[in-house]
Amino acid sequence: MVGGGQGAFIGAVHRIAARLDNRFELVAGALSSDPERAQASADELGLARSYADYRVMAVAEAERDDGIQAVSIVTPNNMHLPMAKAFLQAGIHVICDKPMTATLAEAQELAQIAAQSNALFVLTHTYAGYPMVREARRLVASGALGDIRMVHVEYVQDWLARPVTGKQADWRVDPAQSGGGAIGDIGSHAGHLARYVSGLEIGSVAAQLSTFVDGRQVDDDAQMMLRFVGGARGMLWASQVAPGNENEIRIRVIGSEASLDWCQTRCNELRFARLDEPPQTLTRGGPGFGGVARVPSGHPEGYLEAFGQLYADAADAIQAGTMPDGLPGIDDGLKGMRFIAATIESSKNGSVWTPV
Amino acid sequence: MVGGGQGAFIGAVHRIAARLDNRFELVAGALSSDPERAQASADELGLARSYADYRVMAVAEAERDDGIQAVSIVTPNNMHLPMAKAFLQAGIHVICDKPMTATLAEAQELAQIAAQSNALFVLTHTYAGYPMVREARRLVASGALGDIRMVHVEYVQDWLARPVTGKQADWRVDPAQSGGGAIGDIGSHAGHLARYVSGLEIGSVAAQLSTFVDGRQVDDDAQMMLRFVGGARGMLWASQVAPGNENEIRIRVIGSEASLDWCQTRCNELRFARLDEPPQTLTRGGPGFGGVARVPSGHPEGYLEAFGQLYADAADAIQAGTMPDGLPGIDDGLKGMRFIAATIESSKNGSVWTPV
Amino acid sequence: MVGGGQGAFIGAVHRIAARLDNRFELVAGALSSDPERAQASADELGLARSYADYRVMAVAEAERDDGIQAVSIVTPNNMHLPMAKAFLQAGIHVICDKPMTATLAEAQELAQIAAQSNALFVLTHTYAGYPMVREARRLVASGALGDIRMVHVEYVQDWLARPVTGKQADWRVDPAQSGGGAIGDIGSHAGHLARYVSGLEIGSVAAQLSTFVDGRQVDDDAQMMLRFVGGARGMLWASQVAPGNENEIRIRVIGSEASLDWCQTRCNELRFARLDEPPQTLTRGGPGFGGVARVPSGHPEGYLEAFGQLYADAADAIQAGTMPDGLPGIDDGLKGMRFIAATIESSKNGSVWTPV
Amino acid sequence: MVGGGQGAFIGAVHRIAARLDNRFELVAGALSSDPERAQASADELGLARSYADYRVMAVAEAERDDGIQAVSIVTPNNMHLPMAKAFLQAGIHVICDKPMTATLAEAQELAQIAAQSNALFVLTHTYAGYPMVREARRLVASGALGDIRMVHVEYVQDWLARPVTGKQADWRVDPAQSGGGAIGDIGSHAGHLARYVSGLEIGSVAAQLSTFVDGRQVDDDAQMMLRFVGGARGMLWASQVAPGNENEIRIRVIGSEASLDWCQTRCNELRFARLDEPPQTLTRGGPGFGGVARVPSGHPEGYLEAFGQLYADAADAIQAGTMPDGLPGIDDGLKGMRFIAATIESSKNGSVWTPV
Repeated sequence: MVGGGQGAFIGAVHRIAARLDNRFELVAGALSSDPERAQASADELGLARSYADYRVMAVAEAERDDGIQAVSIVTPNNMHLPMAKAFLQAGIHVICDKPMTATLAEAQELAQIAAQSNALFVLTHTYAGYPMVREARRLVASGALGDIRMVHVEYVQDWLARPVTGKQADWRVDPAQSGGGAIGDIGSHAGHLARYVSGLEIGSVAAQLSTFVDGRQVDDDAQMMLRFVGGARGMLWASQVAPGNENEIRIRVIGSEASLDWCQTRCNELRFARLDEPPQTLTRGGPGFGGVARVPSGHPEGYLEAFGQLYADAADAIQAGTMPDGLPGIDDGLKGMRFIAATIESSKNGSVWTPV
Repeated sequence: MVGGGQGAFIGAVHRIAARLDNRFELVAGALSSDPERAQASADELGLARSYADYRVMAVAEAERDDGIQAVSIVTPNNMHLPMAKAFLQAGIHVICDKPMTATLAEAQELAQIAAQSNALFVLTHTYAGYPMVREARRLVASGALGDIRMVHVEYVQDWLARPVTGKQADWRVDPAQSGGGAIGDIGSHAGHLARYVSGLEIGSVAAQLSTFVDGRQVDDDAQMMLRFVGGARGMLWASQVAPGNENEIRIRVIGSEASLDWCQTRCNELRFARLDEPPQTLTRGGPGFGGVARVPSGHPEGYLEAFGQLYADAADAIQAGTMPDGLPGIDDGLKGMRFIAATIESSKNGSVWTPV
Repeated sequence: MVGGGQGAFIGAVHRIAARLDNRFELVAGALSSDPERAQASADELGLARSYADYRVMAVAEAERDDGIQAVSIVTPNNMHLPMAKAFLQAGIHVICDKPMTATLAEAQELAQIAAQSNALFVLTHTYAGYPMVREARRLVASGALGDIRMVHVEYVQDWLARPVTGKQADWRVDPAQSGGGAIGDIGSHAGHLARYVSGLEIGSVAAQLSTFVDGRQVDDDAQMMLRFVGGARGMLWASQVAPGNENEIRIRVIGSEASLDWCQTRCNELRFARLDEPPQTLTRGGPGFGGVARVPSGHPEGYLEAFGQLYADAADAIQAGTMPDGLPGIDDGLKGMRFIAATIESSKNGSVWTPV
Repeated sequence: MVGGGQGAFIGAVHRIAARLDNRFELVAGALSSDPERAQASADELGLARSYADYRVMAVAEAERDDGIQAVSIVTPNNMHLPMAKAFLQAGIHVICDKPMTATLAEAQELAQIAAQSNALFVLTHTYAGYPMVREARRLVASGALGDIRMVHVEYVQDWLARPVTGKQADWRVDPAQSGGGAIGDIGSHAGHLARYVSGLEIGSVAAQLSTFVDGRQVDDDAQMMLRFVGGARGMLWASQVAPGNENEIRIRVIGSEASLDWCQTRCNELRFARLDEPPQTLTRGGPGFGGVARVPSGHPEGYLEAFGQLYADAADAIQAGTMPDGLPGIDDGLKGMRFIAATIESSKNGSVWTPV
C-alpha cells in the first residue's frame, strides 16, 4: 500500500476491503511521504516491510521472491501517476483510487504506460462493486429496459458545506493536489456510474460548476446535462455543499420499456418498473442475478462489501492475467478524466456543449 | 365553468375542489364547444343554466342578479385567452387552469386585460395548495435555510411513454392547442413550484427538449439547468415518457444552513435537514405552520385537498377583493409563459443560456 | 346530522365526506345537545332546519315531504343507540360513526331495531373506504394469497400520551360516554380492518389492556393475539399513548402464497409480495382493480376521499334499497362490539382466550 | 472453529466477521463431524491445523504454545454444550452461535461450567453489533425516552414458507438438533434484542406457537405478548413462513417521552421521535453516539460489520480478561433459553402467562 497512513480515510477502507474475502494480505507499504509517520503507521498495522519512498518500494518488492503482487495507491490524485508508473514499470499490479490522476494529460500518460506493462491497473470506482448496481447493469444489457432514453445520476454530500479544514478536506480543495473539486472527487464516481450501468458512453456535456463557499479554490457543486452516444440524454448533479445529504449517490436509467432506480442509502434494493406494470423491488439473488453476495438476501450488505468486491475481482483478474467485464480499469480512468476535463471546459465557456 | 364536459379529466377535479370547502356552488356552464355535448354534460351535473357559447354565458351571467361570481376555465390552453378575456371584461372573476395560455404573446395580452379589469384572475398551480409546500415556502422565507444555494425540481410521468390517443392526450400533443408538450403541461408546474417555494425568480435557462416518441409533434421530455436571480442554481426535469413514474413531482431547496425535500408521493411529509443535525420529518401542524389542514395530521390529505385549497383561497380573495400571498395569479402565469418560451428558445439554440 | 356542532372534529369530516361526490346535501340538524350551541352551529353552516332535540327532528323530518333521507350520527358512543333508534323507527336511513354503541347490550338492541326497520344502517369504518384497502380485500378474496396464515394489524397514536383535556379527549376517556378507551376508539377500527381485508371472522382473543397515563379511567393501550375462524392467527395493537405516531394504521395479511401490506401513512400504495418473486408496489387502477378512484393514480388521495367513499356507497345503497358488498353496516357493528367486549373480558381474566 | 465446513452458512459469516477488523486469524478447526469433509474444508480454507474431533482439538490446542486463544462454535444447537464445555474446560475462550443450547437444562449446565472457567463465553446475537442498535440502547439508558411503556419486536422470514430441505433447513426443523423452530432460531434473536435495547428483563410471556407447514415437527411461527419487569408491556412476532419477508427484524421501544424504531432493512438509520416534536432520522456519528463505525456515516454498513463488531468486542474482552458492557454472554444465553422454554410452555398451556 502506498499512502493511507495515520489519519487517512480511504486507506483504512482499502485495507478492510482487501481483507474481506481473504484474497490479499497486507505485507508492505510506503504509508506516508513523511518517513516517521510512515514507520509509525506501519508499526501500528504490523506491516512486515515499511518503506519511506514508494520508488524504493517498487524496485525492492519487484526484486524479492516474496514481493508483493499488487499495490494499492490511496494518495491525493496528483501522486497517482508517478506512483502507478513506478509499480507498473516494476511489473507490479496496481489498484488505484479514483479519479485516475489530477489532470487529463497525466491520465493519457498513465494509459500509455499501462499499455506497455504486463501488470494490470484497477480503478476503485466503489459503486461498481454493489450487487444491485451489477444487477442493474445486467438488466440494461439484457435489453429489459428497451431503448435507453435517459440517465439521471446524482452524488450529493454536505461535509464541505462550510469552510472545512483537516487532512481529508485540505488536499481535496487544493487544485494542485486534486485537479478539481466536487467534479473530480465525486462527479467522477457519478459519471462512471452512469456509464457503468447504462453501458453508454457520454458524448458531450453542458455544465455549470459553482463554488458556493467563499474563498474555496475549486468547485464544490457541479450540475450538467449529458448527451450519450446513441441519443440518450441525461442530467448529473454532484455537490459537496448540500446540507442534509451524507453521501447520497443515486442513478436512474430510463428506457422505452422499463426503468431502474438505485441509491446507496437503500443499497440492497433496486427498483425496477416496467411500463404498465407495478414497480418491483429487486434484491440480491434470483434467476440470472448479475451481482454477487456473501450472505443471503435480507442480510444487508454495504459500502465495505462493495469495495471488497473490487478487490475480490482484482484477485481473480490477477490470477487470470486479464481484466474481467465489470471491473473498472485504465480505460474507465481515461474516460473519467476526459469527462472531468470536458465539464470544466464547458463550464468555463458558458455551459456550451463540449465533447468528452 | 367553461369546458370540463363529458370525458374531461381536470373539469371533474375542479368541481370537487370547488365543492370541498363549501365555498362555491356550480350553477352555470358552457361545458363543451359542441352544443349537444354541452347540454348533456350540464344535465348530468344538474346545472341550472347551460350555455352553448362562452361569450353568451359571460354576458348573460354578468347581467343576472344571481349571476355567477367566478368562472372556472378548464379547456385546452389555446382557448384560455379568449375565454378569460370574455369573463374578465364582463367583471366575472376567473379561475383558470395552467399554463395560462398557449403562447407568450397571448399571456402578455391577457395580463393587460386583467390589469384593466376589477375581476381577479387565479391560476390553478395545484401544488401550491399542498400544506407541506406552503410550510416549505414559509420556512425558506423565514430564513431557516440560510442563503439559498440550489433548487432542484422534477416532474416525471410515463403516460405518454408510448404513442397515446384519446381526449386527454390528443390536444396536449397538438402544438396548436397546447403550445408545447411536457414543458407546457408539467414543466410549467415544476417551474412555478421552484419559484413558489424558493421565493426566487428564474433568471435564465439552458435547456434541452427532446421528443422520444416517434412522430410526436411536441417535446415529451425537458431537461434544463437554471440560474436564479441572486445567484442560486438548479436543475429541472419534466418528462412524460419515463416508465415507472405516475406523477412524481419533487422539489429540493438547498441553503447554506439547511435543506428541504418534498415530493407528491409522500405529500403529507416534508423533510427538513439542518446542517450537522439529524433530518426531521415535518407534518401538518406545529408552531407557525405555514399550511392549512382540514383534518389532524396523520390523516393523509392529497391532491384534491390541495386543489380545493386554491378554491378556498380564491373564495377568500373574492371576498376581500384582493389576491392573498400564496395564491398564484396573473403575474405567475405571465412568468410561467416567459419561462416556457425561454426554454424552447434555449433548446433550439444549442442549450445556450437564455434569459427568462 | 346529529352532533357535530362547534368544536367537534368528526362532524366536520362527515360534512366534507358527504359533500365530496355531490351525493348528499346537508339541510337539517340537531348539532348539539345544548340548544343555543345547536342553533349557533346551524347558523354557521347555513342549515335550513335546526332542531334542539334529535327526537323532535326524527319525527318532524319523517313527516315532511322534503324531509331528510338519511341522518349522520356523530356524537359520543353512548348516544348512538337512542339516536339511531329514533331515526330508524322513523324510516330515515342512518349513517353512524363507530363504534356502533357504547356497550354490547346496546349493540344487540340496535341490531334488533335495525332488523325491523326498512331504513338502512351504515357504519363509518373509514379505512374500508380506501381504494388500496378495497384492492387488498379483492386480492385476498381472489385467492391470490393462498391460505391465509396470519393477520397483523395495528393502529397507533400519541395524542393521549399525556393527560389531555378538551372536547375531543374528554368523552373518549369517560367510560360512561365511550364504553372503552383505545380498544373502543381505534381498536374497533383495527378489528374491523382485519375482518374486512382478510374476509375472516375473529374467533377468539387473548388480550392485555393497559392504562399508562395515571388517573385515566379507561384503557389507553390494547395488545392482543387473535385466532380467526378457520385457523389463521394474528396480533393486534391499538395504542393512543405511543409518542411518534400520529395515526398509524397498518395491516398485513399473510397467506401461504403471498402477502399484503398496507399502511395509512402511504395510503396510495399496497405492497404485494408473492413467494419467490420480487415484491410489487400496487397503486390505484390496473386490471380488476378492486377500489375506486376520482383522479388518476399518482395524484394522491387521502382520508377525506376514503370517508367520502362510504358516503358515496351509502348514496348508492339508499338508491338501491340494499347494502352493497364492502360497505360496513349493522352486522359489522355488532361483531365489533362483541370483539370489544371479548377483549375487555379476556384482559380482566388474565389474558385467557375468550370467544368473540 | 468448530463446525462451518463445506455447505454451511453461518460458518462463513463468522470467518469474515472475525477477519474484518484484523483481530483474529483462523488457524485451526474441526470443521465437520465427518473427518473427510473436515479435512477437505480445512484444505479449502488453508487451515494450518485440522482436527477430526473437537475434543482432541481442545486438548491439543490448549497444550500448544501457539494454540488458539478462542474458538468459534457454529454447529447445530444440540452440539453447543459439549463443545463449549470441552473448550472452556481447556481454558480456551468460546465464541458461540445462538441460541446457546438446544434445551434449558443444557443452558443451565453450561452456565455452571462457564462460571468455573477462566475463559470467556461470547454469544453472537448479531443484531447487538449494529451501530444504530447500540445507539438505541444508549438513548434508552440515557433516559431520553422517559419511562418505557412498550417494546414491540418482530423477526419475519419466508424461507421456510414451503416444505424445504437442505443443509440449512434440515437441522433447524429437527427438534432433536435445534430444540425448537422459529422461536429458537429467530425468536431468540428477537427476545434478546428486546432486552438489549430496552435494558428491561422479560418477566412473563403469553404465547401461541404455530406450525403452518404440514408435517413439520417444530413451530414455524411464534406470536406472543410480553410483560417486562417494571411494568412495560410488549409484543413479539417471529415467523419463518411469511411470504414477502427476507429477514425483517425490527424493534420499537416506546417511552412516555419519546420512541425509537429500528429495522434491519434500513439498518443505518434509527428513527427517534420525541413527543410533540418532528421525528428525527439518526445515523452513525453525532455527539455521544453509542455505536461504532468503520466508515463515515452515509457509507452504509450491514450485517457483516455488525457481526464483525462482536468479534472486535470479543478481542477486546479477551485482551481485558473481562466482558464489556454490550457484548452478549453466558447470562444472556441462559435468559434466552429460559425465554424459549417459557414460550413453549405457555403455548402448550393455552397461552397462559408464564414466568420466564
